[in-house]
Amino acid sequence: VKEFQIINQIFKDLAKNSDNKKSNLNLLIDAKNLCDDTAEIRFKKNQIMAISKDIFVEDIHFRLTDDVEKIAAKLLTTNLSDLASTGATPICYLFGFGKSEKCNEKFLKSFARGLKKIQDQYNISLIGGDTVKSKNIFFSITIFGVKNSANILDRSNGQENDLIFVSGNIGDAFLGLNLSDKKKNFKKKLANLLSKKEINFLEKKHFEPTARVELGNNLAKLKLANAAIDVSDGLIADLNHICISSNLEAEIDLEKIPLSLEAKKILKNSNYFKISDLISAGDDYELVFTAAEKNQKKISQLAKKLNIKITNIGKMKKNFADKKTDKNQKNHVSIFQNNKKITLSKFGYEH
Amino acid sequence: VKEFQIINQIFKDLAKNSDNKKSNLNLLIDAKNLCDDTAEIRFKKNQIMAISKDIFVEDIHFRLTDDVEKIAAKLLTTNLSDLASTGATPICYLFGFGKSEKCNEKFLKSFARGLKKIQDQYNISLIGGDTVKSKNIFFSITIFGVKNSANILDRSNGQENDLIFVSGNIGDAFLGLNLSDKKKNFKKKLANLLSKKEINFLEKKHFEPTARVELGNNLAKLKLANAAIDVSDGLIADLNHICISSNLEAEIDLEKIPLSLEAKKILKNSNYFKISDLISAGDDYELVFTAAEKNQKKISQLAKKLNIKITNIGKMKKNFADKKTDKNQKNHVSIFQNNKKITLSKFGYEH
Repeated sequence: VKEFQIINQIFKDLAKNSDNKKSNLNLLIDAKNLCDDTAEIRFKKNQIMAISKDIFVEDIHFRLTDDVEKIAAKLLTTNLSDLASTGATPICYLFGFGKSEKCNEKFLKSFARGLKKIQDQYNISLIGGDTVKSKNIFFSITIFGVKNSANILDRSNGQENDLIFVSGNIGDAFLGLNLSDKKKNFKKKLANLLSKKEINFLEKKHFEPTARVELGNNLAKLKLANAAIDVSDGLIADLNHICISSNLEAEIDLEKIPLSLEAKKILKNSNYFKISDLISAGDDYELVFTAAEKNQKKISQLAKKLNIKITNIGKMKKNFADKKTDKNQKNHVSIFQNNKKITLSKFGYEH
Repeated sequence: VKEFQIINQIFKDLAKNSDNKKSNLNLLIDAKNLCDDTAEIRFKKNQIMAISKDIFVEDIHFRLTDDVEKIAAKLLTTNLSDLASTGATPICYLFGFGKSEKCNEKFLKSFARGLKKIQDQYNISLIGGDTVKSKNIFFSITIFGVKNSANILDRSNGQENDLIFVSGNIGDAFLGLNLSDKKKNFKKKLANLLSKKEINFLEKKHFEPTARVELGNNLAKLKLANAAIDVSDGLIADLNHICISSNLEAEIDLEKIPLSLEAKKILKNSNYFKISDLISAGDDYELVFTAAEKNQKKISQLAKKLNIKITNIGKMKKNFADKKTDKNQKNHVSIFQNNKKITLSKFGYEH
């Protein structure tokens, strides 16, 4: 992480003065200081294009032994999830492809099938890209969405006393990843505890996540939320991004973290995983968002309408720390259990 | 090339029905059937965003021994050149980065310096991107531009009897590449013929090309040209792209191909290169465009105003071939020398 902060620092200079630069074209560019997953371009009549880019590399983000169709589907879904957190409506995407000798026609057809499945689901289409030769395979997607208000749901837009909400359940993708790891053998270890259906359910959460596009869209349109982010790095880490950008602290209740029945079963009946693992792990692709307390009822109604579980897990608080000494590395998320503040170490927590 | 046609075929299905799909958002998406380097999105009030993506891979498009600053500058320039051929005004770009262990901070700073140099020159800025770990280094740039008319300068827009024009000179980049190749030793071989300054001039044409953004912009704004493309694959190959997309043939005069004094000197006084090499090689990043004969005078005036050499090298003709039997692979560019048609083999030509 520190290493990538250095990279960001080096390239930040290239994004300077992007605002207003093209005012002669009636455009407004917002690079969000390269701190966001999404940049925005505002066109005439206030229509705004939201843009996001994600890259998957062989042996880093996927293995060749993985199901190619699912790799493709997940890559496109993670991009859609970035857009979802901005409230934008996805419209189309570009596809970049570093092709090694290992990619035969069958591989490509499976990959295209995976993209097709997701693009049909979200009503988007491919508009172009570039294919190059490469020793290692990599895929890059740039996705485009449109929204009508600027900066809405921005991670810097969290307000003091906002309630913190999260969609769906947290940790299922992490459990699914571990169950699918043949070396770790959890599938065997938990065979007495979980049915095949339950194992499949968790694995699917890892390999075939859902992007909360409709939820993000509605939160923006109805102006119900202030700040939002998708959970890719982990609930705590991503909520911490909102804290840093909004210069606020977050307090969450461990008991309120929404868990699936399957996750609860595992936590209760085995010692392999703790809830702290689940909130530290990533790849949930749920939305965490902050909203004024007065909107709580409307958010419940929206949850019912979209048939999505939405849970209030805590509250945003004033940040009393000196901003200058805060090097953007501190954890701004406090976790409470039975009204006592607990400390979370990387995997596992201490009282 | 054939291999990449297969890839294109597989992914073409994903671009289907992209037109008009988002009419509820007042948007029109044009993927150009994935056959173009640039896709377009039309916003309200007819403002159109042009988008292009290019990827550079280690050991394929550059070597680690190359000057990093120049790699960066060239990558951004090639993207700008794609936009130039559409007549769009560049506004900003995204940067994707596959980072290997060989990329230290010095490497990154040089890379950022190279981008900075070009973005200042063309008044654009970075708006975001993604950095991932990778065994091999790769860079991906997605560039955005804005234009006011759709499909103008499209490679499919060439008209029968259009004159064919090319900007600048052809072949200098190819000669510069060869001169810089230490193994081939041309620098020594041509030392009696070329001054150091002349060698530098040619090498610079390869390592530091210019994107003809202003020319493309003016051709579109003044509606002087019908079809345009930038010379990246080679003059003949790129003109052939216009022929295929416009369903036309092209006839060019070998004597009219614009060459630099340096290139002329080499062709005249050595046997290492032939003019057929120069028009088959790529990386010139000049614009080839077709225009109605009545616009010839205005094009000359524009050339003078922008201080860019523009040369009429031939004419577009009707394609008498049966479109169905034409597998998009045939060469549609005929070359004439002393009014006789000649046949061009890959490197060298036969009467």
